[in-house]
Amino acid sequence: MHALKVTRAEDFPEWYQAVVRDADLAELSPTRGCMIIKPWGYGIWERIQGELDRRIKESGHDNYYFPLLIPLSFIAKEADHVEGFAKEMAVVTHHRLKKIDGTLKPDPEAELAEPFIIRPTSETIIGDAFSRWVKSYRDLPLKLNQWANVMRWEMRTRMFLRTAEFLWQEGHTAHVDEADAMDETMLALEIYRSFSEDFLALPVVAGEKPENERFPGAERTYSIEAMMQDGKALQAGTSHYLGTHFAEAQNIRYQDKEGGQTLAHTTSWGVSTRMIGGVIMTHGDDDGLRTPPAIAPRQIVVVPMLRGKPEDEELKVYCASLVAELNKLTAFGFPVRAYVDTKDAKPSDKRWDWVRRGAPLICEIGPRDAAGGNVTFIKRNALREGEKIKSHTLEKADFVAQAAGLLEATQKELFDEAKARLDGNIRGDLATFADIEKYYGTEDKEGEFKGWTRVQWSRPTGAALEEVGKRLKALKLTIRNAPMAQPSSFGACIFSGAPAVEEILIARSY
Amino acid sequence: MHALKVTRAEDFPEWYQAVVRDADLAELSPTRGCMIIKPWGYGIWERIQGELDRRIKESGHDNYYFPLLIPLSFIAKEADHVEGFAKEMAVVTHHRLKKIDGTLKPDPEAELAEPFIIRPTSETIIGDAFSRWVKSYRDLPLKLNQWANVMRWEMRTRMFLRTAEFLWQEGHTAHVDEADAMDETMLALEIYRSFSEDFLALPVVAGEKPENERFPGAERTYSIEAMMQDGKALQAGTSHYLGTHFAEAQNIRYQDKEGGQTLAHTTSWGVSTRMIGGVIMTHGDDDGLRTPPAIAPRQIVVVPMLRGKPEDEELKVYCASLVAELNKLTAFGFPVRAYVDTKDAKPSDKRWDWVRRGAPLICEIGPRDAAGGNVTFIKRNALREGEKIKSHTLEKADFVAQAAGLLEATQKELFDEAKARLDGNIRGDLATFADIEKYYGTEDKEGEFKGWTRVQWSRPTGAALEEVGKRLKALKLTIRNAPMAQPSSFGACIFSGAPAVEEILIARSY
Repeated sequence: MHALKVTRAEDFPEWYQAVVRDADLAELSPTRGCMIIKPWGYGIWERIQGELDRRIKESGHDNYYFPLLIPLSFIAKEADHVEGFAKEMAVVTHHRLKKIDGTLKPDPEAELAEPFIIRPTSETIIGDAFSRWVKSYRDLPLKLNQWANVMRWEMRTRMFLRTAEFLWQEGHTAHVDEADAMDETMLALEIYRSFSEDFLALPVVAGEKPENERFPGAERTYSIEAMMQDGKALQAGTSHYLGTHFAEAQNIRYQDKEGGQTLAHTTSWGVSTRMIGGVIMTHGDDDGLRTPPAIAPRQIVVVPMLRGKPEDEELKVYCASLVAELNKLTAFGFPVRAYVDTKDAKPSDKRWDWVRRGAPLICEIGPRDAAGGNVTFIKRNALREGEKIKSHTLEKADFVAQAAGLLEATQKELFDEAKARLDGNIRGDLATFADIEKYYGTEDKEGEFKGWTRVQWSRPTGAALEEVGKRLKALKLTIRNAPMAQPSSFGACIFSGAPAVEEILIARSY
Repeated sequence: MHALKVTRAEDFPEWYQAVVRDADLAELSPTRGCMIIKPWGYGIWERIQGELDRRIKESGHDNYYFPLLIPLSFIAKEADHVEGFAKEMAVVTHHRLKKIDGTLKPDPEAELAEPFIIRPTSETIIGDAFSRWVKSYRDLPLKLNQWANVMRWEMRTRMFLRTAEFLWQEGHTAHVDEADAMDETMLALEIYRSFSEDFLALPVVAGEKPENERFPGAERTYSIEAMMQDGKALQAGTSHYLGTHFAEAQNIRYQDKEGGQTLAHTTSWGVSTRMIGGVIMTHGDDDGLRTPPAIAPRQIVVVPMLRGKPEDEELKVYCASLVAELNKLTAFGFPVRAYVDTKDAKPSDKRWDWVRRGAPLICEIGPRDAAGGNVTFIKRNALREGEKIKSHTLEKADFVAQAAGLLEATQKELFDEAKARLDGNIRGDLATFADIEKYYGTEDKEGEFKGWTRVQWSRPTGAALEEVGKRLKALKLTIRNAPMAQPSSFGACIFSGAPAVEEILIARSY
């Protein structure tokens, strides 16, 4: 028996919803496609924000805040961008409500001359500011970041993975030339890769997206891709070199050293609350989430086995002193976050709540532990031995001495487990497209684990690429990216037989 | 000559705009009534967020995130709330754009069956969640907080003080009864008072708003009011006891200990980016902002007097080592934020940039300082002696030893100066309404400093209160609040002559 009603093997999508609900991460709201993020989920986001913000600032970016609403005419300026976003945006058309025939309605007299759209991303409004701020080469590079909510009217939504409104960070920069802008694009990609791996324990493959998967208006798009426990890929972050597309549309020009007017080269890059979905599908198990300690809002939870008896007081004092000692420790460069749960509920219910949320270390302290000066605890990432819950007991002083090390070890174990899964499930042995059709097609069973495949191709464009896309789509596959690390020589393109020029990853995806 | 083109005495509103612009805090955006918050302004907001968030969590509140868009029908549920907000909201009516006759327009086929409004505040959507979450008295109190952007379609906007979109924190709580909800209302008010005074160096008067100034749907509204340098009052934060109004509208009921179904009592409270406007108008001077050190994004700025000569290198090394030593210090419980400005610009221009932004300590280090092991610095809150800039020189070791103390002293001096202004400008000697009419009316000159007045009144309601409001409005006055500290006995109401029951503050306001 497990803590969730459905296991990963039984029904992975259902299991995912169960973790989101039972780990108290988020729930659906009455606003279509939008979620309410609850304290455990929001606390994870706060940790992501805090550390990523530190890394973004350290690499020379300043935080700004731009308006939520973008004038419609701004969106219309860049053709590819319009095409990519116009179909799924929330449009503000009125600025007042009025009671009409007893019903509250948009006031017809308060219709806006120009509608606004709720930002799906902010290239256009930030580009407009760039055009005012950038005058000389001395003003470049201009490197900024924004933490914001954005909105895309998605038809099929799934908590954290794809919601109409989501929270994210968007970097926007302007540079003198392509070389400098490309350095920035790769810098952002590397921030995302290292952050995902170090802080979320999420191993990823960084690489370039094919032409047909680029951001609307981008010259080149790079991504980090993570492997979920069902074998599917999750794009966890993207970094775009925008060339001079937005600079042309928004007139971002600078006076160069020779006195001429030159178009700036821009970039943009973002990660969102989607990352939390990736953490769930990478580290969750059939008992709930296993939260990586670096991002766990509470890293060590102490549950006193209160029985409504006089000895409860002594037990509470013991637990409070344990937590006070733990909170003096440092792990991952920050103070340890220990917490004693004194809520009025059955201790075993509380224990299971913390198991489902995935607090990394859960201490259950009974009167005997207190009397003997011991700490009995569960290591959430290694919860069971067979079916049985595996608990450990240490003297209090030993537990305190080892606690930070246990947290850091947990982080590493979660990463290693996910890394082994990723590395072990990228096939390089499917030599022909027929092999791929067999593996992902005729031999495919509903819900069966299918990893990724690494193949060589000739990097077709236009209609030829569209044709490749169709062949893959028939197998529910997409090209994820061309990993940064490439071999020195190539064979034949798996799609056309022409000489190959790079290796790409193909996979099913979210 | 001062660093701003306009002084406070010449034109206070123009001076305010000059500080916002020249201290690089924010600028107007192409989206009507919305601003772009720039790094120095946003950095101040990040400091406000960080510390206020800590205090809100410490007092038992959890952070959540609720949707930006609220279904129209939710707003319609609470009559007073509708009345208060319906007139100034952004309404989303479509979810797609379409090119029609070559122009991008809201797609008529994508009109929403029920429009959404962009949250002007979140009582209704959070109340809806409360109605699902609150089942038993054991679920209460439920205490949550949200950091979010909100939108009110204000007609006349002013940066930070009143903008269509603004950033804020909104607390929302539910309780078993009035007593518990009132304790919470006062707890939030006290958090705001102490935070403003300790952290923003902003002395305030906490008190209850009169009936006609209550939040739409509130039973009682409390505020903190700060005195600006032109004598006007700024409402810097509010805390509301909502009674059972929202609980009735949203059906927030709990099973009480006797098994009955009882309505919960709710509260809400918020502060916003408006606080930054209060900081500007309290601490700014004719050379720009004087940023309180606790919220200054950079507390100590080192400007090396580079001359493009070989000795520059030595100077840079000296400045870098100074900053490294300063950053090891602690002030206000956080690491000191020191920074060396090596931007390619004239040292004197850089110095004045930091003066206008109000970095608390500005060090100008020349080759002679470096050679002699000295630090020459300006204390921004005491910039001048007469017209001349006052600079100080200390040995490097002494400066490092005194730096944290200098920052903390600056914070206290800014507070003391503002506190003396507040305390010294609340008149208690205007004994009749005729005195008030004379002082604020016949003797009033455009732009002249007029402080606040403290008077006694009988706390009229309804039409009688409306009449009082009209008499005050003729003098451009409003009732700010009834301060928490009240005398033990009262004389006659200044408006009606009836026996007074409390003292209130009247003032001009933002």
